[in-house]
Amino acid sequence: MTHIQAGPGSRTSGHVYDMCEFVFAGPAEGNPYLDVKFTGTFSLGNRRIQVPGFYDGEGRYVLRFMPDTEGEWNWLTRSSASGLDRLSGQLSVAPARPGVHGPVRVRNRFHFAYDDGESFFPFGTTCYAWTQQPLPLQEQTLATLAMTGFNKIRMAIFPKDYPFNVNEPLHPIFMTRTDGGLDFDRPNFSAFRHFETQVARLMDMGIEADVILFHPYDRWGYADMSPEQDCRYVAYMAARLSAFRNVWWSLANEYDFLLNTKPVSLWDRFCHILEENDHVGHLRSIHNGDPNMNFDHRKPWISHVCIQNWDVKRTPEWRIAYGKPVVNDEPEYEGNIYPAWGNITAQELVHRFWITVMRGGYAGHGETYADPDDVIWWAKGGRLKGEAWKRIAFLRRLLEEDVTEGLEPMGTNNDWPWTRISGAADAGGRVRYIYFGEHQPNEWTTGLPTDGGHYRVDLIDTWNMTIEPAEIVPPLIPHPTRHGGVVRGGVPDADFGVKLPGRPYLALRIRKLS
Amino acid sequence: MTHIQAGPGSRTSGHVYDMCEFVFAGPAEGNPYLDVKFTGTFSLGNRRIQVPGFYDGEGRYVLRFMPDTEGEWNWLTRSSASGLDRLSGQLSVAPARPGVHGPVRVRNRFHFAYDDGESFFPFGTTCYAWTQQPLPLQEQTLATLAMTGFNKIRMAIFPKDYPFNVNEPLHPIFMTRTDGGLDFDRPNFSAFRHFETQVARLMDMGIEADVILFHPYDRWGYADMSPEQDCRYVAYMAARLSAFRNVWWSLANEYDFLLNTKPVSLWDRFCHILEENDHVGHLRSIHNGDPNMNFDHRKPWISHVCIQNWDVKRTPEWRIAYGKPVVNDEPEYEGNIYPAWGNITAQELVHRFWITVMRGGYAGHGETYADPDDVIWWAKGGRLKGEAWKRIAFLRRLLEEDVTEGLEPMGTNNDWPWTRISGAADAGGRVRYIYFGEHQPNEWTTGLPTDGGHYRVDLIDTWNMTIEPAEIVPPLIPHPTRHGGVVRGGVPDADFGVKLPGRPYLALRIRKLS
Repeated sequence: MTHIQAGPGSRTSGHVYDMCEFVFAGPAEGNPYLDVKFTGTFSLGNRRIQVPGFYDGEGRYVLRFMPDTEGEWNWLTRSSASGLDRLSGQLSVAPARPGVHGPVRVRNRFHFAYDDGESFFPFGTTCYAWTQQPLPLQEQTLATLAMTGFNKIRMAIFPKDYPFNVNEPLHPIFMTRTDGGLDFDRPNFSAFRHFETQVARLMDMGIEADVILFHPYDRWGYADMSPEQDCRYVAYMAARLSAFRNVWWSLANEYDFLLNTKPVSLWDRFCHILEENDHVGHLRSIHNGDPNMNFDHRKPWISHVCIQNWDVKRTPEWRIAYGKPVVNDEPEYEGNIYPAWGNITAQELVHRFWITVMRGGYAGHGETYADPDDVIWWAKGGRLKGEAWKRIAFLRRLLEEDVTEGLEPMGTNNDWPWTRISGAADAGGRVRYIYFGEHQPNEWTTGLPTDGGHYRVDLIDTWNMTIEPAEIVPPLIPHPTRHGGVVRGGVPDADFGVKLPGRPYLALRIRKLS
Repeated sequence: MTHIQAGPGSRTSGHVYDMCEFVFAGPAEGNPYLDVKFTGTFSLGNRRIQVPGFYDGEGRYVLRFMPDTEGEWNWLTRSSASGLDRLSGQLSVAPARPGVHGPVRVRNRFHFAYDDGESFFPFGTTCYAWTQQPLPLQEQTLATLAMTGFNKIRMAIFPKDYPFNVNEPLHPIFMTRTDGGLDFDRPNFSAFRHFETQVARLMDMGIEADVILFHPYDRWGYADMSPEQDCRYVAYMAARLSAFRNVWWSLANEYDFLLNTKPVSLWDRFCHILEENDHVGHLRSIHNGDPNMNFDHRKPWISHVCIQNWDVKRTPEWRIAYGKPVVNDEPEYEGNIYPAWGNITAQELVHRFWITVMRGGYAGHGETYADPDDVIWWAKGGRLKGEAWKRIAFLRRLLEEDVTEGLEPMGTNNDWPWTRISGAADAGGRVRYIYFGEHQPNEWTTGLPTDGGHYRVDLIDTWNMTIEPAEIVPPLIPHPTRHGGVVRGGVPDADFGVKLPGRPYLALRIRKLS
């Protein structure tokens, strides 16, 4: 991350996709959070990008801008405070630094890529309240993340009140009143700065921060702010965080448990506020609690589907229903705590990842093993104790080796046999996979190549993380059968078959050689 | 089984729920299957039961009657053949013999019981074409069934043409014409007699015969009879088989693959023919192939839901959709053959049985391990090679020990936490179960008793088939959380909790002591 701190009239420089920060001195009296309007306009050629500024306490006013194009930009401020109005300067933007690919976008309708076109396959984890824990624990969380293969993390800015989460947060997000309650009209600027520091550290590690704006697990009042306070907070978050290229907006964790105070129209309004105030246009979605309460992800201001659902073979149904990338952020968590969303086996979670990915979606990890000090990864971070994360990293490496455009399922849930087993092919055409899961056929042909090309086929043990050449055999020639008037079988449906060892949790990788 | 063979004018005796068979000599010329009408009316007090007779070849005409009430019955025949018309006699019916409970009926809306009120929990298996195999193999099939806990078997009368099923059948079901084709207007009476012999042997073993009338896996023409031939055959089957108390009617295996020749209206017509010709009113259902093509089981002539679907956690949805007992006859089969419906692990099939039963449904077994001679249980019978059948027998024994009214799920798929784990309680009130499956909580409280009563709680390992006392601990007291305006937690939701060993595939049995 590059922070540029520049004042009016200056000539500064930056890089594409890096944050450029401009700091100004202005009025500190009263409540500038409520009262002072402050924006900047960045222009290059015929483009003009309006960027909201924000108050950062002690008379500091800040503009944060993430340029997406190299060149000589000009900027100009407007403000209700005369000392902040009509300030201007230049910004010289050089190409992106090596390894910097920009924010993640939707690509190929059901997939993602970085802004510069580099592939991005989300393999995320969940640490809801890690930035609210003691600082040594936060360091441990970052160290753990560095050794995993996770490239996205779901994290809330508000603290969490929930079973296993009874400690007081590191910072209140708004200022404490003299009566001990919170004043939701006065941000605690140091809390926001700390949150941003951790978002920036994730950015430097190549990890997307899926920032959760609201959630229902609250004893301090964050879930019960007024609609005006909610909207002001959303706009403030957009002004502070949009210039961080690794931000995704998750409007809520489990929005449906907040419907009594935040109706659907208000969630829509939050999205519109982000549309108006996030100059980068980061990804936006909303996560449900009840599996029957998916948000209507068809709405155009939702960029991708974020759901919670254990029934992962239904992934193609959600693709069809919403026509957007599907991220199943909570196909249940590996662990052993008593809540039933948090105690599946490692093998089951790995299985659900493979099914989801092999049906054209993406899944999210969480880990919930009981801990004597209640330091559980899913909420507080710390150390991973389980076994799924290694296999998820293995799956991510597999995809990154071969997939370019994103995996498309080999059938919908109406298509035989893909409603039962899982298979997917890259639209790039060089690789496909078949995942058998709980199925253990002794031989397989369907879904293997039919074009007479040269292929290399490997047998993957998804749990033991081994890859070995598969044993190629002649294709199966099924005895003809009739389904109504249609005779099926009699001729093989692929050029060759594969002999299989007859145990579960195996996959095939089929790479085209020529 | 008691066969009574009696002629006109005779005074014979029988037992409630046993078949009483009356044989008459009549015309053999022409084609009596098409031309001769022959029925009997059985009367007791003000009841009159019309029973269709049938032609059995060589001038033999047969009436089969299953009385449901003891007493002195009278009977009278009507026929288009004058020698068979207005014959009469008496039938003295004594109470049912010990251990004979009659046909299976629907009870308590979602469950079954024998006609005399004895509980019946279906735990069926599948041997589609076993009565078409060489006789020694049929004997082996019956010997295998005798050692299992299966009390229902799905079996077709027509032979099967399919992968692994290429042998010629033991008998054609209709007579062979001189050109080698079948004459679907001339039954092969010895084939029907053989089928009935095997139905009767199952009856003597306490096994329900789920008789499949049509299926698409055919190379002989059975699937392509004319609608008139179909309807005549259905009526003939009703006349021959209805007096066997252990018959269930399965209109089809995978009816949706026959829709090109048999539209839905024809399936309805078949049901009506059974309604008119089956004087016992046996259970009636229709099995689908495509999981999205369930028959409309709401129709009043369908007694229970028979489906094929791997997604067994959805069992409560099918109960709600159809309001009838749900029998999932094909939650996929244990095995290793290449078709993807026939190669799940034994553990997965046992898991699906537990989930189905613990959500208020019933499941069906099948086994499909590859065999050098293609003798695979699911189609031909023979020997079982797998591991699921023992665990399914264990589950049946558990239910029969305690359940009286049938298991009702502890929630719908909208209810927390029962959409994730599975739990059920007997309406009789003396037992409930919680099945954790792929979940492995280290402690559990939800769903345990709340009434201050005395209970015995056992921990069941569903795979290792062990039962041991569970470790009782104080109930969990969850930290309060808010979901919108509702505060949850803070107080335990049961009188006590259970400590669990943190591994998968466990269940709790909670028996009320006082």
